Amino acid sequence: MSAFGYKVLATDGAARRGRLTTAHGDVETPAFMPVGTAATVKAMMPDSVAATGAHILLGNTYHLMLRPGAERIAELGGLHRFMDWSGPILTDSGGFQVMSLSKLRKLDETGVTFRSHIDGSAHHLTPERSMEIQKLLDADVTMAFDECTPFPAELDVAKASMRLSMRWAERSKVAFVPRPGYGLFGIVQGSVFPDLRLESASALTSIGFDGYAIGGLAVGEGQDAMFETLDVTTPALPQTHPRYLMGVGKPLDIVGAVQRGVDMFDCVMPTRSGRTAQAFTHRGTLNLRNARHADDPRPLDAACDCPACTRFSRAYLHHLIRCEEILGAMLLTWHNLRFYQMLMARLRAAIETGTLDETAAAIAVELAMGDIPPRG
Amino acid sequence: MSAFGYKVLATDGAARRGRLTTAHGDVETPAFMPVGTAATVKAMMPDSVAATGAHILLGNTYHLMLRPGAERIAELGGLHRFMDWSGPILTDSGGFQVMSLSKLRKLDETGVTFRSHIDGSAHHLTPERSMEIQKLLDADVTMAFDECTPFPAELDVAKASMRLSMRWAERSKVAFVPRPGYGLFGIVQGSVFPDLRLESASALTSIGFDGYAIGGLAVGEGQDAMFETLDVTTPALPQTHPRYLMGVGKPLDIVGAVQRGVDMFDCVMPTRSGRTAQAFTHRGTLNLRNARHADDPRPLDAACDCPACTRFSRAYLHHLIRCEEILGAMLLTWHNLRFYQMLMARLRAAIETGTLDETAAAIAVELAMGDIPPRG
Repeated sequence: MSAFGYKVLATDGAARRGRLTTAHGDVETPAFMPVGTAATVKAMMPDSVAATGAHILLGNTYHLMLRPGAERIAELGGLHRFMDWSGPILTDSGGFQVMSLSKLRKLDETGVTFRSHIDGSAHHLTPERSMEIQKLLDADVTMAFDECTPFPAELDVAKASMRLSMRWAERSKVAFVPRPGYGLFGIVQGSVFPDLRLESASALTSIGFDGYAIGGLAVGEGQDAMFETLDVTTPALPQTHPRYLMGVGKPLDIVGAVQRGVDMFDCVMPTRSGRTAQAFTHRGTLNLRNARHADDPRPLDAACDCPACTRFSRAYLHHLIRCEEILGAMLLTWHNLRFYQMLMARLRAAIETGTLDETAAAIAVELAMGDIPPRG
Repeated sequence: MSAFGYKVLATDGAARRGRLTTAHGDVETPAFMPVGTAATVKAMMPDSVAATGAHILLGNTYHLMLRPGAERIAELGGLHRFMDWSGPILTDSGGFQVMSLSKLRKLDETGVTFRSHIDGSAHHLTPERSMEIQKLLDADVTMAFDECTPFPAELDVAKASMRLSMRWAERSKVAFVPRPGYGLFGIVQGSVFPDLRLESASALTSIGFDGYAIGGLAVGEGQDAMFETLDVTTPALPQTHPRYLMGVGKPLDIVGAVQRGVDMFDCVMPTRSGRTAQAFTHRGTLNLRNARHADDPRPLDAACDCPACTRFSRAYLHHLIRCEEILGAMLLTWHNLRFYQMLMARLRAAIETGTLDETAAAIAVELAMGDIPPRG
């Protein structure tokens, strides 16, 4: 079993082209992790997810602890075997979803008491239990248990929340059982307050983690505030360790974050959009439900090599969506995930050749072009 | 382009092992046709449908004429290209679904006037228009336009309905434009009345078709009445032509019909069941929603080679269904279609070796065995 580790292979400004090594294989970074909430990337076969170019998936502790249960997954051989994904898996800590999805939650120093949004059952999630659950799931990357600070937050609230997360990070580190090939990431909090972000980064670095995540962004603060926060935060994190921007994001959010030294991303956007007729293309987003696609024989995105684009017309995709056919969600999800992976491959290649800024500018221009009219 | 045709390769009693040749390839018979109602076999990629062993699909004239429209599909290159299925396609005539799905329908000698169940738009479907639509769709096998006699029906009603269908069959034959590799099937009606079935078979044989379907069964008459009707009908059809039992059915319905000389089948059962947690296995049907599967590490069907059975546990499939995950429908549909195709392959092999009756008896015993208990 390889040791867990991260290696910088090339840099371009603040951006890094790297490789994360885990118990279940390597991840080329910058990397986008498709979200497999309930032990499935929605509407995708696992081998199709791999075919999009994904190296690593994200699983949700909150969802999996409630259904089917972490002990059950462990009994069945762990999350990789359960969902037939042989590559690396990162699990979140449960903190974010407890706050956004559960009912009757009560937070104190020990952790969070809440009721399941599914069946109302009572649960207590602590740093120690979160570590235990993620070990039961057999996550290659375990995330420290944190409170995702609501946005917007007053300075005092954000400070108290961040400091609680830092105490929980320390408890997470103590509770995490090291194993070769498995790593633990701390999560920087502090809302949009630079001093808090620096204090958080410093606290986590002192504890010492295998990687550092930036949490509490993409919660409504806007791209400018997100980038400003990254400008403050990433330089305060060790150059030697991977950096993960949680829950981000739109293609240009990812591009800007890579330019600011972020290595890993996850977001439900490509998968959720795929189930709501939204497609990402090299010339911006399209709503396939729109009647203007009904007679359009062209591929969804001529620059894409996925099955949705190489085997079918926009007219067909539109038809599937109008008929609420499952295949519509399957094809658009596949395309969107492939679009994201092509974006990451392009960013990795640009860093290797020292052309990231030009590439980022070109991507921004392309995405703003808008669709070519059907009979153009 | 090969001529349309059917060849008997082997027989075993009344059963035939044959080969149907069409413009888009051959079909080994007895064959099961997955239903691709709205230009998609629900929850399946076309290459996955092919991977189950299907040689030919069924498309629905009624659904496709309403959405996206036959002229639109023709403009986009025909149904094969539209849905990325390069093999043969059989389309029904629209008659059955007009009667079961449309609103405010009015039937007269010319055809059926009805309103769409989707948007209330008015349509008039006649033998001539049905032939035109099926040509626009580019169906390899076109079905004559008929009235599916309701069940139960009094003798007089069934007779009048059957005779109308025979007049429509004649008009269908006149309107059908022969092309190399494309064929037209007539449909025997007559409810469960032997004399009417014989009259219908005789009328159709006189007109002359490329194949003969048996319609109006699997509508509530029960397996005994279905088999009795087949016992009367198939001997009255030409030995030289393919026979298609429409809308059938359960595995043992198919086995019994093959023993009675039927070559082709279609049914929504494997696909619809796949979306409602029902799985066909070699030891009978299972409901994967049942809590007893929650911890079961075994494959759904140890005798099956599909992805659902080789890559996942019953516990995982149960989890997907409980979470209403699309992948649950995808995997169970795949499995059920594969189960049906394995059944057909087994029947074909049995006819070739002259062991159909023993095989049929063995299948009946297996299916009645019931599931092996989880810790048995």
